[in-house]
Amino acid sequence: MSSPSSRTSPDDVTAATVAAVRRTLDGRWHTVRDEIRDRPDFAELRVDPGLDVESYRAEIWAMLRRLADDGHAVHGFPTAVGGRGDIGASVVSFEMLAFADLSLQVKSGVQWGLFGGAIQALGNAEQHARFLPGVMDLSLPGCFAMTETGHGSDVQSVHTTATYDADTGEFVVDTPTESARKDYIGNAARDGRMAAVFVQLYTGGPGEEPQRHGVHAVLVPLRDDDGAVLHGVEITDDGHKQGLNGVDNGRLAFHGVRVPRENLLDRYGAVAEDGTYSSSIESENRRFFTMLGALVRGRVSVSGSAVGAASLAQTIAVRYGEARRQFAAPGSEEEITVLDYLAHQRKLLPGLARTYALRFAQNELVEMLHDIQTTREAGGDVDEKRQRELESRAAGTKALTTWHATATIQACREACGGQGYLSENRLGALRADTDVFTTFEGDNTVLLQLVAKGLISGYADDFGNLDTLGTVRFVADQVLDTVAERTSLRQLAERLRAVAPGRDEDDVLDRSWQVKLLDDREEHTLDGLVRRLRPARDKSLSAERQFAIFNNAQDHLLRAARSHLDGLVLDAFVRGVEAAVDPSARALLGKVCDLYALSAIEEDKGWFLEHGRISAARAKTVTAEVNRLCQELRPHARALVDAFGIPESWIGAPIATGAEQRRQDEARAHAASLH
Amino acid sequence: MSSPSSRTSPDDVTAATVAAVRRTLDGRWHTVRDEIRDRPDFAELRVDPGLDVESYRAEIWAMLRRLADDGHAVHGFPTAVGGRGDIGASVVSFEMLAFADLSLQVKSGVQWGLFGGAIQALGNAEQHARFLPGVMDLSLPGCFAMTETGHGSDVQSVHTTATYDADTGEFVVDTPTESARKDYIGNAARDGRMAAVFVQLYTGGPGEEPQRHGVHAVLVPLRDDDGAVLHGVEITDDGHKQGLNGVDNGRLAFHGVRVPRENLLDRYGAVAEDGTYSSSIESENRRFFTMLGALVRGRVSVSGSAVGAASLAQTIAVRYGEARRQFAAPGSEEEITVLDYLAHQRKLLPGLARTYALRFAQNELVEMLHDIQTTREAGGDVDEKRQRELESRAAGTKALTTWHATATIQACREACGGQGYLSENRLGALRADTDVFTTFEGDNTVLLQLVAKGLISGYADDFGNLDTLGTVRFVADQVLDTVAERTSLRQLAERLRAVAPGRDEDDVLDRSWQVKLLDDREEHTLDGLVRRLRPARDKSLSAERQFAIFNNAQDHLLRAARSHLDGLVLDAFVRGVEAAVDPSARALLGKVCDLYALSAIEEDKGWFLEHGRISAARAKTVTAEVNRLCQELRPHARALVDAFGIPESWIGAPIATGAEQRRQDEARAHAASLH
Repeated sequence: MSSPSSRTSPDDVTAATVAAVRRTLDGRWHTVRDEIRDRPDFAELRVDPGLDVESYRAEIWAMLRRLADDGHAVHGFPTAVGGRGDIGASVVSFEMLAFADLSLQVKSGVQWGLFGGAIQALGNAEQHARFLPGVMDLSLPGCFAMTETGHGSDVQSVHTTATYDADTGEFVVDTPTESARKDYIGNAARDGRMAAVFVQLYTGGPGEEPQRHGVHAVLVPLRDDDGAVLHGVEITDDGHKQGLNGVDNGRLAFHGVRVPRENLLDRYGAVAEDGTYSSSIESENRRFFTMLGALVRGRVSVSGSAVGAASLAQTIAVRYGEARRQFAAPGSEEEITVLDYLAHQRKLLPGLARTYALRFAQNELVEMLHDIQTTREAGGDVDEKRQRELESRAAGTKALTTWHATATIQACREACGGQGYLSENRLGALRADTDVFTTFEGDNTVLLQLVAKGLISGYADDFGNLDTLGTVRFVADQVLDTVAERTSLRQLAERLRAVAPGRDEDDVLDRSWQVKLLDDREEHTLDGLVRRLRPARDKSLSAERQFAIFNNAQDHLLRAARSHLDGLVLDAFVRGVEAAVDPSARALLGKVCDLYALSAIEEDKGWFLEHGRISAARAKTVTAEVNRLCQELRPHARALVDAFGIPESWIGAPIATGAEQRRQDEARAHAASLH
Repeated sequence: MSSPSSRTSPDDVTAATVAAVRRTLDGRWHTVRDEIRDRPDFAELRVDPGLDVESYRAEIWAMLRRLADDGHAVHGFPTAVGGRGDIGASVVSFEMLAFADLSLQVKSGVQWGLFGGAIQALGNAEQHARFLPGVMDLSLPGCFAMTETGHGSDVQSVHTTATYDADTGEFVVDTPTESARKDYIGNAARDGRMAAVFVQLYTGGPGEEPQRHGVHAVLVPLRDDDGAVLHGVEITDDGHKQGLNGVDNGRLAFHGVRVPRENLLDRYGAVAEDGTYSSSIESENRRFFTMLGALVRGRVSVSGSAVGAASLAQTIAVRYGEARRQFAAPGSEEEITVLDYLAHQRKLLPGLARTYALRFAQNELVEMLHDIQTTREAGGDVDEKRQRELESRAAGTKALTTWHATATIQACREACGGQGYLSENRLGALRADTDVFTTFEGDNTVLLQLVAKGLISGYADDFGNLDTLGTVRFVADQVLDTVAERTSLRQLAERLRAVAPGRDEDDVLDRSWQVKLLDDREEHTLDGLVRRLRPARDKSLSAERQFAIFNNAQDHLLRAARSHLDGLVLDAFVRGVEAAVDPSARALLGKVCDLYALSAIEEDKGWFLEHGRISAARAKTVTAEVNRLCQELRPHARALVDAFGIPESWIGAPIATGAEQRRQDEARAHAASLH
């Protein structure tokens, strides 16, 4: 093990260090974050956890109206309709709502991100002018109706239909079966007046058999101005949920509902008055995934929210861990602060390091989204491969951040014991409200498959295909001998080695060693995956056999995706460390990056050992170093959560805002008075 | 890899097989389970999830009264007061309530298990006669007031006091600080009339300085017959919680509250009228842990509940996984059943195998509890070491089962996607209600330390000590060169080898190999732990240094405990398989046992590789075999959850009871009609 004394020590962590770390974490849209931090009323945007569902929904609706009145929604919409046209800012301002009530966040995401976003991304200029002002000021509350009870992951197979009637110039929208009901639709059960409904589009001239053109979105009014449900629309309530009970999720069914031709969001597929269909994209498949790709912002937003929720939970748990004491030390009356126990550090600090890592990865994702979409909205050209990289990265980052939120909020709850179970301390709601993040906006397991597919196809296929079997079909059509895509880890390793050539090769804290290890795993797992899928190229195989080849490789597929993503995240973290100007901030971030990298390696040490990538002795050193880093970072735990920059009044949890400290002080004074 | 064809195939799984597996899982108290399964009204014992807290509490109270009226409570209480005196039956009947509303279960546990249990275990015959009938028929609703806001894990350090006043023959009960309030106390906020309050007991003659005798329990009335809070008692509500909102948890503070001398539960420490203190146990420490040990049933009960909740969640998720379809197979219109995907099998089936394993371990624990406590209640002698083994096993099993419940219910929720998030499908409540199990009745991390301490001390110390540093103190006082206690794994391995000497040594399905591997790990981790703690024997070391030695070894301590427990569980599973008389049931259980053992080995393969216990090639074989076993057991997944024996009407979740199947059938018929 290397001597820690040979390194820059982060011991001199001051308020200035915290501010510098925070600035680094805040990223490009730091001023948007600061504007929201300065909102005096933000701490009020939380609902009493014991509220019944109807009252909860009403309160969230009132809060959403406040946000609309304050112009919270304008960031991401086009300037032509009164927006600010700043896509990155819209994602970041959404993310900051993770510190308020998560029902409010998700409700705002449904209204402005999903419903408004669909009109923005799929509609024409006339539709923008007609609908977006009402979307922004909330006079037109709406739904994003894509998922059906029967088709969630496989949305290309939705069963709802819209058939053009050339006689009247209308679409007739129908829900043929119970399974085809739109389900889990936010804003449906209570507030929505209109929905962007994803349908199989049919057109045909008079007397012709209707032709199917695949999935399109059409705007369907749901309720009149008094809130009464319109004829032919059937709305049922999804009822109470594990969390997010301030969001009125419901089911929508349509029975011969007629909407004017002008309600088709026709950017990628239009219908003329006589029923003639036209599209700039000939392939139905490609058209569908282009539409889905235009909606990628939703996934990026959920990912940001997960990072925000994780950071709030960790702020609460670390503060409590610093105040809470239990068990006196041997030969002492003084009880030990629980965060001084190694087991407690192990519960919280590697997770904290991962939140840092994912924050940097998320920042890069938002920048990529912003740059690509801004270029396109300005009429510029975006390389198709770059768009697919964005989609892949959004899918993969969302899977990592949401699983991380689930795991780390749980660890925080357990680290706070009974206090963590009380709703006043917020961890319960954070846990329950974010739980659905792992399966909505794309089931995480399916998203990882998408990532793997992008890697082995070099993003050359119609991308965005959520079909789990698409990979096999693709491989069956190609001659693949090498992995097409990799992260930039190898370059990074070489660059790091060039910068610090004298570093000890045996040192587990050598960043270029850490990077190389993850790079090797990525290469190996991808190569192995391609090798396993290659037999599917034989087109004479039965469907069953093709499925078996895919299915037997499914765990390799998921591992390859994760390996790739781990690499992206470490890459982003290293860039984040380098971006810190303040030396003390950089030193502290470097330690956190070590803890992230080594705990990621430790977590998968079985693989590294099994594949001869590390020796047994080195594996043990990694574990010892994770322990040592936990103890070294322990004194800076508070600084690390302070750097998330969550204003004091937003934290809310009594155990994190003085109550426990006050109790401990009183108890110790009382004990002293007895002696 | 061995050829699966050489083994007894469980392909002939019939209803008779399921019944035989169920009988094996049901264990010694199978008739108690069957009696409860036959209750016609059991399915009604669930509350609408959207209910506000006060209505929820009222409904649970009404249901508890129904249970009391039906004699649900009588199993565990002494026959002298109208009970059945069947301790095992009381734990099993409690466990069955996991299929009802978990708030009802926990509320019943507070009343009959904790409050009634404290009187039963710590009180005298007169107190039994005076109080237990009212406990059983619910005319005396009560609380178990041990935990304080400031002391949860370290309950030996509670600050509430009871000081004997010889002039009046009363105890004066006081809460000196906010931190000393009794907290999270079930039945406190709404229904409790009395509490068993754990206090530091002080006695002294007139004019003498009061002497402290350590922790004792005293019965303190809280409310009068009209429910009004009594003078000097201060009750606050813990408010809304992450789950279990039908239980009225609250905080209790006492200000000079006087109770008669006869209210001290004095089995282990009595106070005479003149204030003379007497106890059959001289050491205060030993007395405390003897009292705690007498209360071990609570921990065993929580453990059973966790296994029950896990089995219900898996029943729901497996049934949905068998009905739900997503994505068509290549070259086919037919969509694939999600449980046919390897990734879905991986999400659910190893967890299902672990529930089986823990069910057998739990059954053995209940038998041990029953036999020991029945012997003692009949006036027989119980070896002290045996009692401590029970306490250790209860602590460790509870930690494993509750962490397992948390993880597997979460996996089930994710496997059910959006449906899993809807309260009607029960997974949300199962998850939220059981979440606190990992930290109540002993924080799991602290419990594992208790297990490790028992192992290295050979249960020779005052046991039950939750003090994390007790281990260091103990080691400091002893000459320890070898591990004192181990599981019977080695014997088992030898016996298995004797039974099947011809088995291929290279076969990962060879049970004796699996057993030997876990046995080796247990031995190695315990030896390593002792070696790490040994320096603490040097009494000249400072308190800080002693703490550092303990703290640096804390992760080894936890690993040693887990290794030991894994061994106990496999041991119990093997006995469970052998207990199955029906050959087809035995074959099926054998496969499930393989899946459990190999996935446990796979989970920790980093350790086995690092310590040279398996080769890289074998590690890969283990993973391949886990995949193969998942696929082999896939056709029997439904049989495996059916064997949990949860009656159809209790399952409740629409996705598991036909709704999804009906929708799929309708959608497929509709699709067929279009062609």
